[in-house]
Amino acid sequence: MILGTVKGTVYSTRKMEHLVGYKFLLVEPMYGNKKELIVAGDTLGAGVGELVLVTTDETVQHGLDHPSPIDAFIVGIVDNPPVMGK
Amino acid sequence: MILGTVKGTVYSTRKMEHLVGYKFLLVEPMYGNKKELIVAGDTLGAGVGELVLVTTDETVQHGLDHPSPIDAFIVGIVDNPPVMGK
Amino acid sequence: MILGTVKGTVYSTRKMEHLVGYKFLLVEPMYGNKKELIVAGDTLGAGVGELVLVTTDETVQHGLDHPSPIDAFIVGIVDNPPVMGK
Amino acid sequence: MILGTVKGTVYSTRKMEHLVGYKFLLVEPMYGNKKELIVAGDTLGAGVGELVLVTTDETVQHGLDHPSPIDAFIVGIVDNPPVMGK
Amino acid sequence: MILGTVKGTVYSTRKMEHLVGYKFLLVEPMYGNKKELIVAGDTLGAGVGELVLVTTDETVQHGLDHPSPIDAFIVGIVDNPPVMGK
Repeated sequence: MILGTVKGTVYSTRKMEHLVGYKFLLVEPMYGNKKELIVAGDTLGAGVGELVLVTTDETVQHGLDHPSPIDAFIVGIVDNPPVMGK
Repeated sequence: MILGTVKGTVYSTRKMEHLVGYKFLLVEPMYGNKKELIVAGDTLGAGVGELVLVTTDETVQHGLDHPSPIDAFIVGIVDNPPVMGK
Repeated sequence: MILGTVKGTVYSTRKMEHLVGYKFLLVEPMYGNKKELIVAGDTLGAGVGELVLVTTDETVQHGLDHPSPIDAFIVGIVDNPPVMGK
Repeated sequence: MILGTVKGTVYSTRKMEHLVGYKFLLVEPMYGNKKELIVAGDTLGAGVGELVLVTTDETVQHGLDHPSPIDAFIVGIVDNPPVMGK
Repeated sequence: MILGTVKGTVYSTRKMEHLVGYKFLLVEPMYGNKKELIVAGDTLGAGVGELVLVTTDETVQHGLDHPSPIDAFIVGIVDNPPVMGK
């Protein structure tokens, strides 16, 4: 999984019906290329500025209540930025 | 998922039968390397210049009516470019 | 999916039995890093120099007649290089 | 799989229920871009500084006792850094 | 799939039970970034210096006799380096 910071919300009116009911957030990776923002589904209520844990690909499905074409999802809100060496 | 802009259409006459009936669009990533265009299936009717939300890999299958060897699909047309911090 | 150009053939005598019967072609990505060639299975009869559409990962399986450890496959031969903006 | 070094622990109180019971470690890739740290689940008890083998994507599920939205997991603790050519 | 050269062996005593019985080899990609070595399972008996074909992600499972958390596997040993244009 990757750690990232929530930067905003993505709104889509015309979308596949399977996506209805999920909120989609723009997430900036904490490590690596910060310019490669991704869009992740959210049901935990993460807010702008919060550090989150994002899972990707087919593993997302194990956190949904019905299969949906979504390849990134917020699975946790991180308590504090990790401290190296602990 | 990634956000991207529709740049054109890809036509293929000789293709696997499972792909018949889908439209394939060329999508330029909004974030990261804009030169790494991908080809995504579409059933929402996205047009050139529109900003779309693309899901990848096996998760695509959950948006299709029958399994098909397609690893990128447009799942939403974005209303407006996301505003950072909101 | 990615667009790529067929550059050659890969021959393997010692291989898993599941791979017997498939042809494997070397494909150069059209967009992004052209040096990152991949090997994709083929049943459409694509030839050297042709532009092809390649699907990846588990989605490959939906185009095979039996499951096989293959993560890239040619699903279409493209009629013409895509024209931007159309 | 990738080889990586455990650098720290990631704590998340607000998380999906499927993640309860797993420990999450920050792992620095040994090869490639060391700045692209990932977060991997762990049940082997890997400690900070240890070299580990990490599997990704849906394959993680085959090492869990119940499906969970986790896309990276430590599957082995490496005895010694690999010696090239042996 | 990618082509790569076997560079060494990875030993892990403390590992998930699902990995017992497989050999794990360090593979250097032939194309792209040679520094991004990966670890792939092997049952074909590939040796150091041999050129191999590696499949990734969930597709690995189709080459195993039981599901295992392994995301890269050697599926073929290549006869000769591919010749461009043939």
